[in-house]
Amino acid sequence: MEFDLISYIKSQSQTDDSVILGIGDDAAVIQPPPDQQMVVSTDTLILGQHFDELTTAQQLGHKALAVSLSDLAAMAAKPRWVTLNLTVPELDWKWLKEFVSGFMELANLHQLNLVGGDITQGPCTISTTVFGHAQPSKTLHRSHAQRGDLIAVTGQLGSAACALHNRNKGLDKFLYEPHPQLAVAQQIKDFAHACIDISDGLLADLGHICQASGLGAKIALEHIPVNPVVKALSPQWSEYALSGGDDYHLCFTFSASDLEKLPPHCSVIGQMGCGQTVRVFKNNQEIIHKNKGFVHFESVNT
Amino acid sequence: MEFDLISYIKSQSQTDDSVILGIGDDAAVIQPPPDQQMVVSTDTLILGQHFDELTTAQQLGHKALAVSLSDLAAMAAKPRWVTLNLTVPELDWKWLKEFVSGFMELANLHQLNLVGGDITQGPCTISTTVFGHAQPSKTLHRSHAQRGDLIAVTGQLGSAACALHNRNKGLDKFLYEPHPQLAVAQQIKDFAHACIDISDGLLADLGHICQASGLGAKIALEHIPVNPVVKALSPQWSEYALSGGDDYHLCFTFSASDLEKLPPHCSVIGQMGCGQTVRVFKNNQEIIHKNKGFVHFESVNT
Repeated sequence: MEFDLISYIKSQSQTDDSVILGIGDDAAVIQPPPDQQMVVSTDTLILGQHFDELTTAQQLGHKALAVSLSDLAAMAAKPRWVTLNLTVPELDWKWLKEFVSGFMELANLHQLNLVGGDITQGPCTISTTVFGHAQPSKTLHRSHAQRGDLIAVTGQLGSAACALHNRNKGLDKFLYEPHPQLAVAQQIKDFAHACIDISDGLLADLGHICQASGLGAKIALEHIPVNPVVKALSPQWSEYALSGGDDYHLCFTFSASDLEKLPPHCSVIGQMGCGQTVRVFKNNQEIIHKNKGFVHFESVNT
Repeated sequence: MEFDLISYIKSQSQTDDSVILGIGDDAAVIQPPPDQQMVVSTDTLILGQHFDELTTAQQLGHKALAVSLSDLAAMAAKPRWVTLNLTVPELDWKWLKEFVSGFMELANLHQLNLVGGDITQGPCTISTTVFGHAQPSKTLHRSHAQRGDLIAVTGQLGSAACALHNRNKGLDKFLYEPHPQLAVAQQIKDFAHACIDISDGLLADLGHICQASGLGAKIALEHIPVNPVVKALSPQWSEYALSGGDDYHLCFTFSASDLEKLPPHCSVIGQMGCGQTVRVFKNNQEIIHKNKGFVHFESVNT
């Protein structure tokens, strides 16, 4: 073989001593730290469904990992290990090398150990399974929002959706190279009640918190942070901010008495209350939104 | 939605109290037993590559899980949790229900908790990631074979490959519904040195043990157990037994002094020695085999 992919992957991987047995056997053996719970999430990305031909191999490698890491951020877990199932139509070494480069750069940034996977031939499909750990009772669940909780988000929303419709306007990195909010998650984990990552759009994902917690939410459009470039580019900016997916910021709820603990770059956008739905207000007037965000084909966990 | 797949999956799942948070959040939270190492393996099955249109949904659900469980058997780990990434071209409820039924039947047989996944639309692809645990230093690695070790297999070989070329002859269950050798793995784990599952064919997989251990192997064709139906059906039976994949039996090595510990239905087929290759003998005459088994497109771990 002109290019040894496995050797290349190994050469790019930084593994720590939690990896007892890594890539190359029937299974990997890892040593979780004592007295911790394990947190696991998995995602599949499909060409034509979750990414398009414009996505570079490097960006795809980055994003395939970022979307799963974002789920661990939403749980306030520390990601440690990952497996990669990569299906590609042909062994295009240049493409594979760039894909691995994008994947491993993000993995190494977060001290994530790639411990196994499967590379197969077929229509381009990527499944990434990340596992991490957290102290018992310290993970953030969708169902733990409390009535009266404030609702916050970790950054500016709508940039990825805007980029999808406006390429080469300086927003592409938000669509193609999202960064999971792992650091912020660690800052909020001791006081936040419920948390979710905004991968399907704010309305859809806050709706999941409402549904799981048996509560409603009211949010104020004018408090939702939006990149000025997005506002300048499109009159649709509120749609992007409310319903655009792929932002991979976090939406979380917490008691108003903990307001001073809110980390920088987090914004309060509303409050949990009665009802079962997310209601949007603009200058105290309720507005109706039809587009509720990305509707999954079917999702076991997201 | 006329059929709630997630509710159906949940209704079929038996989860134990190691599952702190199961299907339905951003990630699952599980509690591994104290002082154990975690063992992880993942596999992808692709329509047209690893299974064909003749495979029923029920069989596919079974097999998608069986191939990953077989990897944990090869490590002598106890499987406990699984995630499922299922990509299907359309929401065919009848097909999905049968698939889930096949998958969950095997999962429940082994007290395996389905804790998450992702169901997406696209070309039929299934990735299964299984997690289990084992006592430290009690997993079986490919690289631990020792010179002079006896080589054994856990059952009859070649049945699946024979079934692929001879349908409806009573062998289909070996191809479509393999059973991972988890129980035998627990019986051999205290005395076996190296172990691998025979998913790619005996020659290829024993070759992996040789390569990883820096040793060679000699096996005797007449000692390889083969189903009499296979021998009766095909003059190619030795090819099936040596190079046919998909058997999901185990091949392991152990010290001759432990011969009396060999469990029932296991057969000694040869011995580890010098060299780097697998050599096959028939009545003490070496025979040459060109077909070395299933060659992976590329495999990070198998």
